[in-house]
Amino acid sequence: MARTTSEASSSVSGVTQLFQLLRDGVPRTRADLAKATGLARSTVAARVDELMRLGLISPIAEAVSTGGRPPSQFALNPRARLVLAADIGASHATVAVTDLAATVVAERTEPLDITLGPEPVLTWVVAQATALLEGMDRSPRDVAAIGMGLPGPVEHSTGRPVNPPIMPGWDRFDVPGWMRQHLDVPVLVDNDVNIMALGERAVAWPGVDHLMFVKVATGIGSGVISGGGLQRGAQGTAGDIGHVRVARGADVPCHCGNRGCLEALASGPAIARALREQGIAAENGDDVVELVKRGNIDAIQAVRQAGRDIGEVLTTCVSLINPSVIAIGGSMARVGEHLIAGVREVVYTRSIPLATEHLAIVQSTAAQKAGVLGAAMLAIEHALSPDALSSLVSA
Amino acid sequence: MARTTSEASSSVSGVTQLFQLLRDGVPRTRADLAKATGLARSTVAARVDELMRLGLISPIAEAVSTGGRPPSQFALNPRARLVLAADIGASHATVAVTDLAATVVAERTEPLDITLGPEPVLTWVVAQATALLEGMDRSPRDVAAIGMGLPGPVEHSTGRPVNPPIMPGWDRFDVPGWMRQHLDVPVLVDNDVNIMALGERAVAWPGVDHLMFVKVATGIGSGVISGGGLQRGAQGTAGDIGHVRVARGADVPCHCGNRGCLEALASGPAIARALREQGIAAENGDDVVELVKRGNIDAIQAVRQAGRDIGEVLTTCVSLINPSVIAIGGSMARVGEHLIAGVREVVYTRSIPLATEHLAIVQSTAAQKAGVLGAAMLAIEHALSPDALSSLVSA
Repeated sequence: MARTTSEASSSVSGVTQLFQLLRDGVPRTRADLAKATGLARSTVAARVDELMRLGLISPIAEAVSTGGRPPSQFALNPRARLVLAADIGASHATVAVTDLAATVVAERTEPLDITLGPEPVLTWVVAQATALLEGMDRSPRDVAAIGMGLPGPVEHSTGRPVNPPIMPGWDRFDVPGWMRQHLDVPVLVDNDVNIMALGERAVAWPGVDHLMFVKVATGIGSGVISGGGLQRGAQGTAGDIGHVRVARGADVPCHCGNRGCLEALASGPAIARALREQGIAAENGDDVVELVKRGNIDAIQAVRQAGRDIGEVLTTCVSLINPSVIAIGGSMARVGEHLIAGVREVVYTRSIPLATEHLAIVQSTAAQKAGVLGAAMLAIEHALSPDALSSLVSA
Repeated sequence: MARTTSEASSSVSGVTQLFQLLRDGVPRTRADLAKATGLARSTVAARVDELMRLGLISPIAEAVSTGGRPPSQFALNPRARLVLAADIGASHATVAVTDLAATVVAERTEPLDITLGPEPVLTWVVAQATALLEGMDRSPRDVAAIGMGLPGPVEHSTGRPVNPPIMPGWDRFDVPGWMRQHLDVPVLVDNDVNIMALGERAVAWPGVDHLMFVKVATGIGSGVISGGGLQRGAQGTAGDIGHVRVARGADVPCHCGNRGCLEALASGPAIARALREQGIAAENGDDVVELVKRGNIDAIQAVRQAGRDIGEVLTTCVSLINPSVIAIGGSMARVGEHLIAGVREVVYTRSIPLATEHLAIVQSTAAQKAGVLGAAMLAIEHALSPDALSSLVSA
């Protein structure tokens, strides 16, 4: 159907306006939509038909009516498109296919060494994604977007890693450009802890606008959601709290070249090293978790002290950004309450009362799924954006 | 002119869309506007006429043309409406009238004690505002909005101070509600350091999306602009860094009841007290500034150490939010480079290189005007918002 530019753009505008309302999944009638948008009933009816034709919304359970024929309700159809989510860590990677509600439909995790460099790692991602889609009898044409987390600072606007310390060969590599040569789909790239914050919010705190996700594992980092949005900072390093100095560690050297960094005192390897110095066999963070689970009192004390060190840094974070939730995740969070007890001890003692009055400090609910769900959220956010929808409608 | 609801709302939508483009003050032709919005040329022409009729935009200097009749250009008319800006500190207050470009047209500053309580203080604000407007032969009807800064945490959505420590009688007081009984204009209220961040950006860093303004005076606080927006946090206490503990101060009691707070070591009164302990006459921060200006070496060293203490806290802030600008203001910033040298010394030594590579740490440009300009920006942001414009168009 041929349309003039202005007709097409006004139609696009009505469609996106309705869809931005319906994307939350809450069922609405045509009358609800007319009321919320101020559009004429006839316009709403036409736009609803167009969104149905595109498969983006579907009629659902009838609304309760006080008499006569009940009006139809509509909501986002989460099956309309798929997204791909890739969570790439230092030594493992996960690729998943999800629907538009971030429900995982298929998933694969394998050991993968980030130091292999971008082309081998991304080739693996493409191969896994293609295999997962084939296994579902779907093709890349059904994929609306790809979300990807990488273990280093990323310039989100271009999807390029920037001076990533543990990713040799990746600096300034055009990840979206390379990916699009193999899967012709929009690619959104972000730091892995940033996407964990998105995943944690989606799973456990959907209405929360101020959330900090702290990953404690081989390294320590955080993702900050503030004012409802992920905060990336001017160079994409926001949340990078692993190299803040803590008082206790003045003499402890860190791999970054400085001394007394949080990561050199409270990460999994740092706790293991402290235990070895006490004559306790602990090679790495996993060993520390095992010792704590077996009730080893020295390990429990070391983990609690690590929690206090993390709390010391988080106290400043609480004053600066005033979050309502701090979720602690990463492999060391598996030790349970001991780590979090140390964090709480310091944050609740040292922060101004008003900032902690309604602050929850909790273990991550999304746990090891936080990354892949956050990558899916990143892709879904793009796939349902007004821009993406406009190109779909006018195509 | 009678219009149906849908016609009115579609007209409003076109008008706001055009105006959100034009409000930046950059002149544009009708063709520019049609291209940027995708609206039909005839629609653009009608909406431009409507904005002209409302006085919100005006034709300005003709565009250069390669031949024929040059197209007319349009831009925001900053004189279309006035805004009122009130910057209320602990012991002084300023009320100003500005235009929509935040140019101050009239202004008055007087000593005013915040502890008098809300009604006497706000009565003074109303009286000053009314007098300033009368002096210009204008009335409250010409005022589009009022922006106000208060020296304590404010719940921005309601405009109510929340547990403000130095404002007895103000807790939960409905500032906008009281103001509107006396001046029937929308009232936006925020913390005074938050609005200083807005003012500093408007004056010196208009394109910067990640800016931290640090006020060093009787107290120490900060305002954080991140991702382009002011970050207020879950309870409105974001930026409240005065009570973060610094290593050097373990034994120094703070008026908050804790020990070692930044404010107890690096504020104006704290530096004065440290100098008195060395036998140097310094009653307050103003005396410290005087001593430094006269070249007193002990005062210079004390100010530099205060800078280092502030830098210790800012190092964590830099890691967490990755700003591109830290502007240091407040009365103690008048000592010049000595304070900032101390801040830089620590922040550049202790932060991860990627976060400081492009970080400017500078003295505030807006200086004592930061608050009143920020209050004006708060009011202007509201006055030019789509919602405010819609009510104007449909009125």
